[in-house]
Amino acid sequence: MVLLDQTRLPVEEAELVCADVPALVAAIRSLAVRGAPVLGIAGGYGVALAAALGSDVVEAAEQLAHARPTAVNLAYGARRVKAAYREAAGGGAAHAAARALAAARALHREDAEASERMAGHGRELLAGLVPDGGLRILTHCNTGRLVSGGEGTALAVVKAVHRAGGLRRLWVGETRPLLQGSRLTAYEAAEAGMAYSVLADGAAGSLFAAGEVDAVLVGADRIAADGSVANKVGTYPLAVLASHHGVPFVVVAPVTTIDPETERGSGIEVEQRAAHEVTVGPGAGPGRGPAGAGGGPALAPVGAHAYNPAFDVTPSALVTAVVTDEGTASPVTAAGIVELCSTSRKRASRLANGMMKT
Amino acid sequence: MVLLDQTRLPVEEAELVCADVPALVAAIRSLAVRGAPVLGIAGGYGVALAAALGSDVVEAAEQLAHARPTAVNLAYGARRVKAAYREAAGGGAAHAAARALAAARALHREDAEASERMAGHGRELLAGLVPDGGLRILTHCNTGRLVSGGEGTALAVVKAVHRAGGLRRLWVGETRPLLQGSRLTAYEAAEAGMAYSVLADGAAGSLFAAGEVDAVLVGADRIAADGSVANKVGTYPLAVLASHHGVPFVVVAPVTTIDPETERGSGIEVEQRAAHEVTVGPGAGPGRGPAGAGGGPALAPVGAHAYNPAFDVTPSALVTAVVTDEGTASPVTAAGIVELCSTSRKRASRLANGMMKT
Repeated sequence: MVLLDQTRLPVEEAELVCADVPALVAAIRSLAVRGAPVLGIAGGYGVALAAALGSDVVEAAEQLAHARPTAVNLAYGARRVKAAYREAAGGGAAHAAARALAAARALHREDAEASERMAGHGRELLAGLVPDGGLRILTHCNTGRLVSGGEGTALAVVKAVHRAGGLRRLWVGETRPLLQGSRLTAYEAAEAGMAYSVLADGAAGSLFAAGEVDAVLVGADRIAADGSVANKVGTYPLAVLASHHGVPFVVVAPVTTIDPETERGSGIEVEQRAAHEVTVGPGAGPGRGPAGAGGGPALAPVGAHAYNPAFDVTPSALVTAVVTDEGTASPVTAAGIVELCSTSRKRASRLANGMMKT
Repeated sequence: MVLLDQTRLPVEEAELVCADVPALVAAIRSLAVRGAPVLGIAGGYGVALAAALGSDVVEAAEQLAHARPTAVNLAYGARRVKAAYREAAGGGAAHAAARALAAARALHREDAEASERMAGHGRELLAGLVPDGGLRILTHCNTGRLVSGGEGTALAVVKAVHRAGGLRRLWVGETRPLLQGSRLTAYEAAEAGMAYSVLADGAAGSLFAAGEVDAVLVGADRIAADGSVANKVGTYPLAVLASHHGVPFVVVAPVTTIDPETERGSGIEVEQRAAHEVTVGPGAGPGRGPAGAGGGPALAPVGAHAYNPAFDVTPSALVTAVVTDEGTASPVTAAGIVELCSTSRKRASRLANGMMKT
């Protein structure tokens, strides 16, 4: 498996070759590959790799599923491909390995298709919300092709708007502490030829005050049944600013991000991360530790305590719309969220029936 | 003149010796010494140094006054000490140099006294606003002894609360891009033995949502006649969050920060700074460029555009109180601001009369 090493971006575009599952597990742990949807795909391909190498596929799937604790998609991808392998095991190892690879490719393709559908629904929504076009969109963190089999979630919408000639500027919040905005989203924006500007997260207020933001588009890590949205820390302040200035605040995520088991936003457990992400600067490039993840100079006194939640939770009242691959909920209500889940179950059921027929 | 080199903090406490005015001008330009009140003091001592060395005092004062364009205090300090020198010039060079040094010391002392008065007024205000004590205060940028002849502005209030046993925690916003919060305020908080935590600026929203902030205290770079407050970028989002959560938002600044010539907040010109402050990481310590001011790894694609305003403007409606050395305006109205200025003019006039009698 050949991965683009995200820890090296934007300093260098380095490929990371993972010749076996332990190497892939290490790459996942070091965040060389990160982001929920793409972790699912990596997990799936990892199991297919184990099958092709004649390794223990069940053990490989478990190792991958547990490489990181919170990424549900990772376990989902690994186990789905393992299931395809086991179903085909009667036909011999080579046949089963081929079926595993086909299952990983299907997962990859489905994620790309979900991206495309989100992009379509998102464009449609924006055309209704901001009919004048020439959009200045503010985004946070990275939600593009680096985290997806396709073009991503929020950034897939931005790219679709850009291709249609409707993007005036993408405002990229740098997203401290790990700088997924300036390192990764700006990289994708430059690659796509967008007009974009990077800003310190605290400078977003000045943009709103100057009337320079037409819409905020962000992804989500989990959406509760009441429509509350957990996303990268720094999202909630943008939602409050957007609301204060009457600017649409739009969340774009695959319907699999909705967690009907979590009733309310207050039930979402937020991961607290290590102080050094805040108190130590990014490393100085190749060989000096990954950019955006320590290795640089002290930014605070030795031993400084840091408050470093990885995510925050935005209540549904501040969210103008949730755009998914199964459609859009706007306004964001518990009933609307239930309906998206129900549409999704129907599609999954259709797909499962289709698979059983093949 | 011996300065604490602020560009080296918190990596090292390095002294910078300025043996003449050109060396001091270079130190001011490199931000080794920064912050409005302390720049005024540095400018004053610089002129006294020129006088002691027998240099051209008028030329030295002009060089210092123009070392940085926006710091009004710098020109004020340099010219005030120059005036003292010239008044005493009839008594000989040594006598005039002694008077110049005395004038610089007076400036220094007055600033320390203003700090003390702000601290007193601020503590009183907080006792009224949050009577339960055990304060959790959120601050932004650096407003402590590093920018003052005394203990500073907002941080002087925090220190007074801490000494009285009333501080539960100081939340220190890191203040991207130049990290004056994590580098300088955390350094002062550690020095004072406070319980403090550093946070990414975007994490402030999570603190408000969790009910972990009792008051926000910040400084100001300029206060318009209508009570609008220009301060370090990232201040306005905190004001919006504080208002959304019903938390007092308090500005602490010497009355000299009020600019009656600027009628409204929209009239405050905001300095746009270089992209590299956002797109290049802090340097890796001694010999690698000042921490917090570039010299580190690329954080964004080469050539990335950055939106990098140095300040933002908070309208008076979001400001609970303006605390000055001449008293407090709360609510913040144009009339209240006028009254603070008038109190200040009366004191200046009393001081001037006092000086003429000596």
